[in-house]
Amino acid sequence: MRLPQYSDVESAYERIKNRVRRTPVLTCKSLNEIAGAEFYFKCENFQKVGAFKFRGATNAVLLLSDEQAKKGVATHSSGNHAQALALAAKNRGIRAQIVMPSNSPDVKINAVKGYGAEIHFCEPTLEAREATLAKIVEKSGAIFIHPYRNFDVISGQGTAAKELIEDVPKLDVVMAPVGGGGLLSGTCLSAAALSPETKIVAGEPKGADDAARSLEAGEIIPSTNPKTIADGLLTSLSDRTFAIISKHVDRILTAGEESIVESLKLIFERAKIVVEPSAAVCFAAALENRDFFAGKRVAIILSGGNIDLKRLANIFSK
Amino acid sequence: MRLPQYSDVESAYERIKNRVRRTPVLTCKSLNEIAGAEFYFKCENFQKVGAFKFRGATNAVLLLSDEQAKKGVATHSSGNHAQALALAAKNRGIRAQIVMPSNSPDVKINAVKGYGAEIHFCEPTLEAREATLAKIVEKSGAIFIHPYRNFDVISGQGTAAKELIEDVPKLDVVMAPVGGGGLLSGTCLSAAALSPETKIVAGEPKGADDAARSLEAGEIIPSTNPKTIADGLLTSLSDRTFAIISKHVDRILTAGEESIVESLKLIFERAKIVVEPSAAVCFAAALENRDFFAGKRVAIILSGGNIDLKRLANIFSK
Repeated sequence: MRLPQYSDVESAYERIKNRVRRTPVLTCKSLNEIAGAEFYFKCENFQKVGAFKFRGATNAVLLLSDEQAKKGVATHSSGNHAQALALAAKNRGIRAQIVMPSNSPDVKINAVKGYGAEIHFCEPTLEAREATLAKIVEKSGAIFIHPYRNFDVISGQGTAAKELIEDVPKLDVVMAPVGGGGLLSGTCLSAAALSPETKIVAGEPKGADDAARSLEAGEIIPSTNPKTIADGLLTSLSDRTFAIISKHVDRILTAGEESIVESLKLIFERAKIVVEPSAAVCFAAALENRDFFAGKRVAIILSGGNIDLKRLANIFSK
Repeated sequence: MRLPQYSDVESAYERIKNRVRRTPVLTCKSLNEIAGAEFYFKCENFQKVGAFKFRGATNAVLLLSDEQAKKGVATHSSGNHAQALALAAKNRGIRAQIVMPSNSPDVKINAVKGYGAEIHFCEPTLEAREATLAKIVEKSGAIFIHPYRNFDVISGQGTAAKELIEDVPKLDVVMAPVGGGGLLSGTCLSAAALSPETKIVAGEPKGADDAARSLEAGEIIPSTNPKTIADGLLTSLSDRTFAIISKHVDRILTAGEESIVESLKLIFERAKIVVEPSAAVCFAAALENRDFFAGKRVAIILSGGNIDLKRLANIFSK
């Protein structure tokens, strides 16, 4: 299995830099005081389609040969990767077919439709998703763009940490949340190359802690029945992301559900920005591990900001 | 009555620039498409204490003589000016006395207390607020810092538009919300001096439209029983802000309550930032007046981001 290197992130950056947003890095004195460290938030919630996923999807779509592009792309996802791939395909003027579980919320279905992608509904199980996708690929020849195993997707995700480290030097710690591990892997490539003295730390929900357990065991241990409010982090590592993460990540810190909600509220209330629960996991882990972070310069990649307002209301009314 | 000039904004800027945050200007393609113009959002919701009010309060507090400073400052406010004055006073190491209605929400009382100010509670009427404040001033000699009539407060508020116009040239329109008119007056001073071809437009809730009616009548018509979700804009113009606004403002556009809520939701959902309802009024007015804005380059000062999450939940659950 070939692993992407930092040079792949660099070429991805040159390829996508005029198509993705260079997101700002925000600081918040009040959150620093609450958590006892100096935080720098890389705002991928402000990225196009509202999440870092647009970086990797854009890189992968631009790297298709003309021959491949004619057949279009396909994936299964009910989340941000679906929207990201749909928009990246639209921007290149090619077909995108997205397999979504039939119980996906309307707001997500409409977002994907809004970018002009074709949606194929399936039963809400991983088996059904994979089977439906396989049929589409067989029939149309569409290129499957995996959300976090794809080589070019990982290279693209690494551009967020590249920008971050260029903007904020001398970091003690850089943090990314981990689900399938695409963002974290890309972060590893950039941080290890550009700032080798910076520790790479991941935040993961306790209720979906396959990455923490995999890292400890030295082999992939997939999640069984993961449960967390951070619904972007339910997936398990792929072989490729596991290989990169094992090599570079200093530690994976888990956060309980209460901390994730507390962190989400604090980010809204104090930093005045809208993030989805998955993006609140790293700061939650920092709140649960004050000793590790005390006084350090810590950058956190806020992965996305896509959350239905009714769901938000439900969280905040408690 | 002496009116502040742009030179006063310039000196205010030199005085406060290392104490206030130079807030970023954000854009959002999706909001541009929805409203049919090109918007630039000056994010005073990211300002210290979460609102532009910190600019004016800091300028006023720094301009006190040592003699005055010894006696401290006082005001009546249940909103952002209270927090702003409390922090500005704390930063200079002087006493701040704040008169707040006895029915103020705990979250606001605690914020003011957190900055070390002394709170005096009174009945929730303007008469009681003024009477309580008068007693405090008489007894302690504290300097009353009016939230939007004070000369130095207005000059300080003008620094937001100064930064904005420096960052975004060639604006067709600059918009600020209007309540008492402090932010709008400061905006007038900077915009008229730095970008005379830019139209200055205000956004005001229909349910509290004293400024629109005053501008039309050519004299101050105070609000009677104003009602709006934009609770930062319930106050009426002062003689000083009326004089400045009459001279410079091209028009005041009002927005209904439904538009304000729609605008608030869109800013959360699309721009991914947390604003208070008052800060959503200008974009609401743009949604209600598409023809006026069509294709224009429009900057909006987002006045603040202080909103209780439970209140937010209540708005978003509908």
